[in-house]
Amino acid sequence: MREIAVTDDARQIHLNLFLPTTGHHEASWRHRGARPGEIFSLSYYREIAAIAERGKFDSLFLSDHLAVGRNYEFGPGVHLEPLTLLSALAATTSRIGLIATASTSYTEPYNLARLFASLDHISEGRAGWNIVTSWSDAASGNFGRTERASHTERYARATEFVEVVTKLWDSWEDDAIVADRASGLFADRNRIHEVDHVGRYFKVKGALDVARSPQGYPVLLQAGSSVTGRAFAARYAEAIFTAQQDLAEAQAFYADVKTQARSYGRTPADIVILPGLGPIVGDTEAEAREIERELNEATIPQVGLRHIAARFDGADLSSYPLDGPVPLHALPRPDDVQGAKSRSQLIYDLIEREKSLTLRQLLWRLAGARGHGTVVGTPEQVADRILGWVDRNAADGFNIMPPYLPGSLADFVDKVVPILQDRGRFRRDYDGHTLRDHYGLRRPANRFTGSRLAS
Amino acid sequence: MREIAVTDDARQIHLNLFLPTTGHHEASWRHRGARPGEIFSLSYYREIAAIAERGKFDSLFLSDHLAVGRNYEFGPGVHLEPLTLLSALAATTSRIGLIATASTSYTEPYNLARLFASLDHISEGRAGWNIVTSWSDAASGNFGRTERASHTERYARATEFVEVVTKLWDSWEDDAIVADRASGLFADRNRIHEVDHVGRYFKVKGALDVARSPQGYPVLLQAGSSVTGRAFAARYAEAIFTAQQDLAEAQAFYADVKTQARSYGRTPADIVILPGLGPIVGDTEAEAREIERELNEATIPQVGLRHIAARFDGADLSSYPLDGPVPLHALPRPDDVQGAKSRSQLIYDLIEREKSLTLRQLLWRLAGARGHGTVVGTPEQVADRILGWVDRNAADGFNIMPPYLPGSLADFVDKVVPILQDRGRFRRDYDGHTLRDHYGLRRPANRFTGSRLAS
Repeated sequence: MREIAVTDDARQIHLNLFLPTTGHHEASWRHRGARPGEIFSLSYYREIAAIAERGKFDSLFLSDHLAVGRNYEFGPGVHLEPLTLLSALAATTSRIGLIATASTSYTEPYNLARLFASLDHISEGRAGWNIVTSWSDAASGNFGRTERASHTERYARATEFVEVVTKLWDSWEDDAIVADRASGLFADRNRIHEVDHVGRYFKVKGALDVARSPQGYPVLLQAGSSVTGRAFAARYAEAIFTAQQDLAEAQAFYADVKTQARSYGRTPADIVILPGLGPIVGDTEAEAREIERELNEATIPQVGLRHIAARFDGADLSSYPLDGPVPLHALPRPDDVQGAKSRSQLIYDLIEREKSLTLRQLLWRLAGARGHGTVVGTPEQVADRILGWVDRNAADGFNIMPPYLPGSLADFVDKVVPILQDRGRFRRDYDGHTLRDHYGLRRPANRFTGSRLAS
Repeated sequence: MREIAVTDDARQIHLNLFLPTTGHHEASWRHRGARPGEIFSLSYYREIAAIAERGKFDSLFLSDHLAVGRNYEFGPGVHLEPLTLLSALAATTSRIGLIATASTSYTEPYNLARLFASLDHISEGRAGWNIVTSWSDAASGNFGRTERASHTERYARATEFVEVVTKLWDSWEDDAIVADRASGLFADRNRIHEVDHVGRYFKVKGALDVARSPQGYPVLLQAGSSVTGRAFAARYAEAIFTAQQDLAEAQAFYADVKTQARSYGRTPADIVILPGLGPIVGDTEAEAREIERELNEATIPQVGLRHIAARFDGADLSSYPLDGPVPLHALPRPDDVQGAKSRSQLIYDLIEREKSLTLRQLLWRLAGARGHGTVVGTPEQVADRILGWVDRNAADGFNIMPPYLPGSLADFVDKVVPILQDRGRFRRDYDGHTLRDHYGLRRPANRFTGSRLAS
């Protein structure tokens, strides 16, 4: 395994903040420390980003759904658009990476390429793109589609989309702008390239109307964990947001993706793997459990049941008693599910693994981080959980999902991060300036520069 | 005419900064005060926005082209994407309005609606949308279109686009978010509306995934001046960026649009008309002329000739002597031009009006502000030009186009603005907070609120 991942004890970890509106716990907004009235205020996100930057996080990340959340009556189902919010946060922060989710299904490559290139310029090299193919019916209805594309079709389009976008990002070579006042030459036409793409899904002439950005390309991220999703990630992703609750499964995923990457001519270090983790931190374990209990009791069972229905093609468990056993027979098998297969599998595995769970207990288990891992305990326990997985080659760091904001992020930053730093495993200050610097990723070469020099 | 425009001598004027990369003069980037190496730096635009806000400008505005500028070898043909840059500037400014150009031809209404609603939230009500239909072949090639749509077709699509977008902006009523921690009710479903639009160009289910923004709708702006463009503007625009060099023509345009607005049930005060004006300010008239001469002599004739070709369907004047008469016969008549008819007309009229112009002189006349009005003189002369047009019902204020940045903007702010303030015609400080406040525009009612209450 040594070739697949460095097992050096001093291996530095990476931390990303997954930043939703009020927090990741289903009942986050009802917590007394939450601020649901501020979810459209820049000042609120500015405060949160400042806490994450004080904690020296590599990056923060916004998800996106292109539709109102299905439980909008019982929690935030609306949010600021990611690229605009991150652009504003680029002006209020100086080092933290800024990652936006954007779909390859409902936008044009030219539009997306320039939005991200622009964010990368504005932030001086801190942009990342979390590539999603979008699977919800709700989203497709907002874009005039009567039925959503199949899983395979979506990934075929995503593959071509990424090829076009990266080509557009290369279309202006790094030194294409000359700006020579004396001669009047602004740009060197030999270093500017039309992409002339004609494919199955897209036809794009180019060049891009934004010069090549500080990172060359914004960092490419991905979250799909199905077979197709993993292959796509192994080929393109430079960081992966994954959902794993079980150490052995996380190790298998980690090894699989890093091995697959080789077949695309990449090295294991080219991909940073970050499982989601919802941390509830207390000064004692009892205090942490009490915070968890309080949040769980504020959940509304209907919301959790709808989440399960959404993951399992509409399966309705609402007629089963909440304090009875989980009716596994009423759920379709994950292989038969059309949507996000990997998340259905994860829930299915959890039910099979812990046969004594009641339906209510299952809902509570999912309420913390929607199927992602959670950890409830003292700062030491949380730090141990994080380093334990990294040391066992299950992760390169974590996608931190605070149950409510800004309180549980501040707890993590003030109590857990110092332990990680004292153990020599996490930066005390930023060394580099770009998101690629933080993640230890190379700046991509420009496909046109080599061929121009060779010709 | 009294009904059409208030002629009160103390009428307050409006000022918008039209903010390109290095300035509006064709040779701006070659000026010693220009900073062409910083056109992708947020700090550069932050500095410019701060100067405009110090000058109490109503707003600043970014144009957009969705393609590399045709003269990219001889001047900036690339730029930051407007919505990302304005979002960043929302965080660095506090009062100035932020207007982005966005096309109705190459994006989806759902995407555009949420980007602008988000900018309006982030800026606390300072967003504006300059609606363009995009006419260039270069843009269409970047979006897989083999031929561009006709003028009529583009406006038909734009009309439906605006209807869908405004409906989406209404889909969450202002008080739809309840966020009642005690009951667990986050949003009131009776105040949230699917738009269920099915039209000729778009099919959009809704609701929007962004709550209704501070201004209800971002301010709607338009720049088209053709017959179709004017009708569209009279119906939808709340502010108009227009290009007028001649007082009488500007008066006719002003009267026409304000009169047409009535037929859509609007009042003249519902539309703010802002012609473009490129000011070159000197402490003496001679000094201003010297700045102009220096800029004009730095132009490259090839660039101006290409601009003319682009306005006149490719007409090539490069074989005519620069110091000979303008070969008007070599240009198609503006009525026969497919692109931006109004700008071709404006150039045509200028040539007919000033028959003694040489070709070089014509190029210089257009180099200052690409056909928009220019004024070269002392601060008093520039202030007189501005107030003269406002007092004669040719404008409600101006779209200020500094020849180079940040220098000529700073000159305008430091020398001309104080005169306008001393004459009691321009604010000494901001009264309101939103762009609607600055322009004196009403906040739009929500189409759903009334019908909900009535039913």
